[in-house]
Amino acid sequence: MNPSITPTHNAALAAQLKQAIDTKTKPLGSLGAIERVAHRLGMIQNTLQPTLNGCTLWVFAGDHGVVAQGVSAFPQEVTWQMVENYLAGGAAVNVFARCNGMALHVVDAGVAHTFGDKPNLIDRKIAHGTADFSQAPAMSAAQCEQALAAGAQLMHDCTAPAVAFGEMGIGNTTAASALLAYFSLLPAQQCVGAGTGLDAHGVSHKALVIQAALALHAPAIALGELPAQTALQHMGGFEIAMMVGAMLAAAAQRKVIVVDGFIVSSALLVAAHMNPAVLDYCVLAHTSAEAGHAVLLRELQAMNPALPPALLGLGLRLGEGTGAALAWPLVKAAALMLTDMASFDTAQVSGAH
Amino acid sequence: MNPSITPTHNAALAAQLKQAIDTKTKPLGSLGAIERVAHRLGMIQNTLQPTLNGCTLWVFAGDHGVVAQGVSAFPQEVTWQMVENYLAGGAAVNVFARCNGMALHVVDAGVAHTFGDKPNLIDRKIAHGTADFSQAPAMSAAQCEQALAAGAQLMHDCTAPAVAFGEMGIGNTTAASALLAYFSLLPAQQCVGAGTGLDAHGVSHKALVIQAALALHAPAIALGELPAQTALQHMGGFEIAMMVGAMLAAAAQRKVIVVDGFIVSSALLVAAHMNPAVLDYCVLAHTSAEAGHAVLLRELQAMNPALPPALLGLGLRLGEGTGAALAWPLVKAAALMLTDMASFDTAQVSGAH
Repeated sequence: MNPSITPTHNAALAAQLKQAIDTKTKPLGSLGAIERVAHRLGMIQNTLQPTLNGCTLWVFAGDHGVVAQGVSAFPQEVTWQMVENYLAGGAAVNVFARCNGMALHVVDAGVAHTFGDKPNLIDRKIAHGTADFSQAPAMSAAQCEQALAAGAQLMHDCTAPAVAFGEMGIGNTTAASALLAYFSLLPAQQCVGAGTGLDAHGVSHKALVIQAALALHAPAIALGELPAQTALQHMGGFEIAMMVGAMLAAAAQRKVIVVDGFIVSSALLVAAHMNPAVLDYCVLAHTSAEAGHAVLLRELQAMNPALPPALLGLGLRLGEGTGAALAWPLVKAAALMLTDMASFDTAQVSGAH
Repeated sequence: MNPSITPTHNAALAAQLKQAIDTKTKPLGSLGAIERVAHRLGMIQNTLQPTLNGCTLWVFAGDHGVVAQGVSAFPQEVTWQMVENYLAGGAAVNVFARCNGMALHVVDAGVAHTFGDKPNLIDRKIAHGTADFSQAPAMSAAQCEQALAAGAQLMHDCTAPAVAFGEMGIGNTTAASALLAYFSLLPAQQCVGAGTGLDAHGVSHKALVIQAALALHAPAIALGELPAQTALQHMGGFEIAMMVGAMLAAAAQRKVIVVDGFIVSSALLVAAHMNPAVLDYCVLAHTSAEAGHAVLLRELQAMNPALPPALLGLGLRLGEGTGAALAWPLVKAAALMLTDMASFDTAQVSGAH
């Protein structure tokens, strides 16, 4: 499960894109981060004229056995209740996706609930929640493979040139923090935040649970043939694993990947350790207020210095893909800058003195 | 020229809005700055259900006599050439406004050029550019009144519930910096930036020009019956004065005002010194990379502590209204959060432990 992703390195195109951006009717560099994103979109689509006629937003939901350790401010049932909210169109991600013209798909990756007949819910349930990773691997190797493959298959059937991911899963900031701590080699305390609203005591407890879990799983991960995938299997979640599979497949198809907050970024961190070229296809939507997110984004940028800085910094910490939905108009605007803006020459505007 | 603006103070509504936002299906405060903006939109429209069915973007263009002092990296003719670019639809602001569904109007407030027959150009030309304010008042008192009234009239004829302003005028960062220095009492060096691309020497020279102009005009401004308006008359520009008039009128009509970058913010600073209640109607689109902008936004926030922080920080420094156009989807999303998102009760989602 490691699809072939073409790195976007192409020095000639990179120079042509820079030239195209620099000769648009504006002072040099005056569109800041939008210019960085525009350049990247050209590299991803291998063209001076990137077109983004749509972005599909995929929300993956899954439950986490580790909630038994008291690591979340909300009860586990909120996962399925929020899935129902997505299906009814009433959650923040529905509102923002509608507002910005994005199609939204909701995937049951492994919610601990029997939904019954829900025509709009994409059923890829691996199990009714993961095992408690403070006690045992979160999932079996076979379940992890199954989740990765399911995510990849969804991308194969998706024709949109851009995709965004979101997630729902009570307890999943704990899994994401554990993955961040594993890959960054930082102590768990530097990788955890309040999630849906823990107090300082709750955050400390969460860090202790993670630190113990890291010690528990380290030997098995070190022995694994594919350590990144084994870390995912031992400490991830079904929704996280499905996003990893989807991201790798999306990059293999040269789709633009709009990266949401902390959990989605943790999936990307796993994916990048499986195949670093996936990062060439990413645009970071926002820096979340969840404490570990800035650390995580620095890890990703260290792996891929060309990764433009996150577009938004609104103090969001909701997940669901809300940050990606809010950032999408900026990504679209960046593409249109390249295709629709006049140059000094064509508009007959004088240059600088 | 000081229309009656109703301050939005209403403690009961403020509490109800907070309650409405806090009971939406999301962890408390997890939509960050979007929540602050949503609250403000409710206060502006005096309702729990603000609706924003459109935003009109007005680009005001004018020329500045002070360019004779060598304060800009681009020649003056770029002002009219860029107006032609707007009319042809090829500038960044056209692209972003189209992308985000905003109607765009271009106003000749005082460009030093005869355009001839241009059906799409709104002709409110006061004169062919201001006088060089390093030598004399930028405009006469009558011209200033005329510009304020023209801006106000445009708003009276505008039915959109939200308006954004943009500008074009080679040399207008010099006027904006002078106004900022006057109102903030800060030395000119702390109020100037590179504009369209000055080097360090150019920026120093610009600061010296401004410092001398402040000394020249201070006595007349101090003697004026309306010091803020007199400062505008002596050191502003026709496009800046027209925006001041438009902002005061827009606030009087309880429109939402989406504030763009440095020049637009300087117009707001003048307007706020004429009537501080105008600030109750504003949403700050972005913090620009132009050096004085962060200083200017701090001045505005000191005058109105409820003013939410600027939404975007993309390193933009283009003007034209581009930042406002890019931020508009976030403002719209904030309104929809209040009207379209489910609450814990209605969605039957459990609350925190």
